Amino acid sequence: MSKILAINAGSSSLKFQLLDMPAETVIAKGQVERIGLPDGIFTMKFNGEKTQFNADFPNHRAAIETVLDQFRKHEVIKDPAEITGVGHRVVAGGEWFNKSVVVTDEVLNKIERLAAYAPLHNPANAEGIRAFMELLPHALPVAVFDTAFHQTMPKKNYMYSLPYEYYTKYGARKYGAHGTSHRYVAERTAAILGKPLADLKIITLHLGAGASITAVEHGKSIDTSMGFTPLAGVTMATRSGDVDPSLIYYIQEREGLTNDEMLKILNNKSGLLGISTLSSDMRDLEDVENTNDHAKLAIEIFEDRVIKYIGQYIAEMAGVDAIAFTAGIGENAIEVRQRIIDQFNFMGIKLDQQANDVRGVERIISTPDSSAAVLLVPTNEELEIARDVERLQAEQAK
Amino acid sequence: MSKILAINAGSSSLKFQLLDMPAETVIAKGQVERIGLPDGIFTMKFNGEKTQFNADFPNHRAAIETVLDQFRKHEVIKDPAEITGVGHRVVAGGEWFNKSVVVTDEVLNKIERLAAYAPLHNPANAEGIRAFMELLPHALPVAVFDTAFHQTMPKKNYMYSLPYEYYTKYGARKYGAHGTSHRYVAERTAAILGKPLADLKIITLHLGAGASITAVEHGKSIDTSMGFTPLAGVTMATRSGDVDPSLIYYIQEREGLTNDEMLKILNNKSGLLGISTLSSDMRDLEDVENTNDHAKLAIEIFEDRVIKYIGQYIAEMAGVDAIAFTAGIGENAIEVRQRIIDQFNFMGIKLDQQANDVRGVERIISTPDSSAAVLLVPTNEELEIARDVERLQAEQAK
Repeated sequence: MSKILAINAGSSSLKFQLLDMPAETVIAKGQVERIGLPDGIFTMKFNGEKTQFNADFPNHRAAIETVLDQFRKHEVIKDPAEITGVGHRVVAGGEWFNKSVVVTDEVLNKIERLAAYAPLHNPANAEGIRAFMELLPHALPVAVFDTAFHQTMPKKNYMYSLPYEYYTKYGARKYGAHGTSHRYVAERTAAILGKPLADLKIITLHLGAGASITAVEHGKSIDTSMGFTPLAGVTMATRSGDVDPSLIYYIQEREGLTNDEMLKILNNKSGLLGISTLSSDMRDLEDVENTNDHAKLAIEIFEDRVIKYIGQYIAEMAGVDAIAFTAGIGENAIEVRQRIIDQFNFMGIKLDQQANDVRGVERIISTPDSSAAVLLVPTNEELEIARDVERLQAEQAK
Repeated sequence: MSKILAINAGSSSLKFQLLDMPAETVIAKGQVERIGLPDGIFTMKFNGEKTQFNADFPNHRAAIETVLDQFRKHEVIKDPAEITGVGHRVVAGGEWFNKSVVVTDEVLNKIERLAAYAPLHNPANAEGIRAFMELLPHALPVAVFDTAFHQTMPKKNYMYSLPYEYYTKYGARKYGAHGTSHRYVAERTAAILGKPLADLKIITLHLGAGASITAVEHGKSIDTSMGFTPLAGVTMATRSGDVDPSLIYYIQEREGLTNDEMLKILNNKSGLLGISTLSSDMRDLEDVENTNDHAKLAIEIFEDRVIKYIGQYIAEMAGVDAIAFTAGIGENAIEVRQRIIDQFNFMGIKLDQQANDVRGVERIISTPDSSAAVLLVPTNEELEIARDVERLQAEQAK
């Protein structure tokens, strides 16, 4: 038995979850927000109690020291040595990482070099890893890459129709994201259906503020909707998803925007927020969809883009055995799920209206006679990270 | 009986076809190339004979005067008055034109204002229209818009997930293209199947150097793969189709390119040419696909993108009754058609290998038991243009 820490470091935040393995139970979890900014916030849930306070966290190392201090203070652990491994979510793994790895100097170096693909995230990921390696030198450091699961995509799916030299020179290709979530959900889907993952064609819909859709054939990601970056694919909370590149230049010119400014608009002012002009939150839009045309349109477009990706992945896999919803919208937007799946009634895929009338519960939500199973699978990236750490600990012990 | 001239003016070219209506037979056809450049070329086919010569054509008017001179010289017509109507292909019709119209001053003015959407084409189209109105004042001038057929798309399909104000301010939306071809092919498909167009769900695949795919439900375009401009959608001869916008900025920065330079690369150096590094012509790639990995990859990507659009349009229409191939690749690439349709065998769509073993012949190429009909329908935009002119002549005569 061991305690494993799952870490998700953003540019100015750090989420943590301490898990008891192999029991897979959560001991404590929380986050540090506003790292490097005034008025940082520490939050932790442990033993049914919530701890929250403000403090300044000049960098990720300071945030991590506070996490470990609070662990000791609240007796989450008695001795830091109880934490046998730390799994770090790393955003960009490029073509170098197709699975989780024990962190070595070479790995750390590569993560830093991959910052070109994730300039806000990879440096923060690397800083977090370094700090934990110093503060918990006995704990096995493991890097779990958001892109690794998608490294099985065939070349025809990851290449863009651009001059080939851009791939050679700059690694210009599709990497995808949310890989840990898609992998977890695909594995759970197979387990719930009681079938080997290797026998199934699954479409996993990670529909949160960031949204991506993956075609998982025989346990492997063969295609995913995000691209070189998480901007591409379906409509998201504030990201545009796919757009005709000419249009972007057209708007830029008329608005007098630089490339960076336009990119910020595509990432932060578009998607549900841009269309609705109201909110980036699906719940807000659902509340007013019957009275507000913009909100209704935003929801319709979101559903339409998801439907289109499901349709293309059914075509790519020549069929589908299961469709699984996860993440904020996927787990909670009952009517959105209903309308998306209703569009596939023509293929015999049918939702059980009662089973679907639920939020955040792991279950099958299709009818028994549906031609493909439809599931709701709350995602759990932290658990998937902890499992990877445990597996690599076992390999190291050999 | 009347003679109708169908005109397709590009920025430096002018294609013409004189049709005998309502017989729908071609009397003469040809083109003027390199307008405004040294060493212009005039070509015409009439009565089984080909006329070709070099001359300088300073502008479209000069080109048109030559066409009419050659008509008289070769006795294609005896009197210009025999030409009762001239139909002009116009690239951008914006939201102002949802069908072909008789050209008035107001129409001409709008075509010129729409040059913002098609800076190379609309001014040439307008110049051609003006010249014919002066030179053949008795012939009814008709504008046939490439975008008009797609004006029936529902809002959820034509809107991008961008800040809504860009639609209001700049008309930032999907317009599509190749509308005349998609309309012609959809109409022929219904006629060949002996069913009313209004009863059918058709996917029309216009696969030429420019390629676009349209979902035609009950005779109306409900979605199409090209976007604000013809850059978007599937992989084309030299156009990229859909690309993660972030990647474009990433490449631009590393290559030190301006927006215009990058846009030129996306339009002229990408697609089949960019991937293959060999040729933009599918025939060249097919010739070497068994020995050249780049050529093979380019073909695979092309087929994959077409398959994905078919898949998404089947999902959007909740089924499909017919899939029709047209244009250069669609009419001639036998194995490409075979591999694309084979991917839909799982839905019961099956190609008849023998029926498919043909180039440029209008026929059904699916098996009798195929769950959807698959057809080869050579496109004929000029005929569709002439039909529109004839219809509008009849309306004017009332």
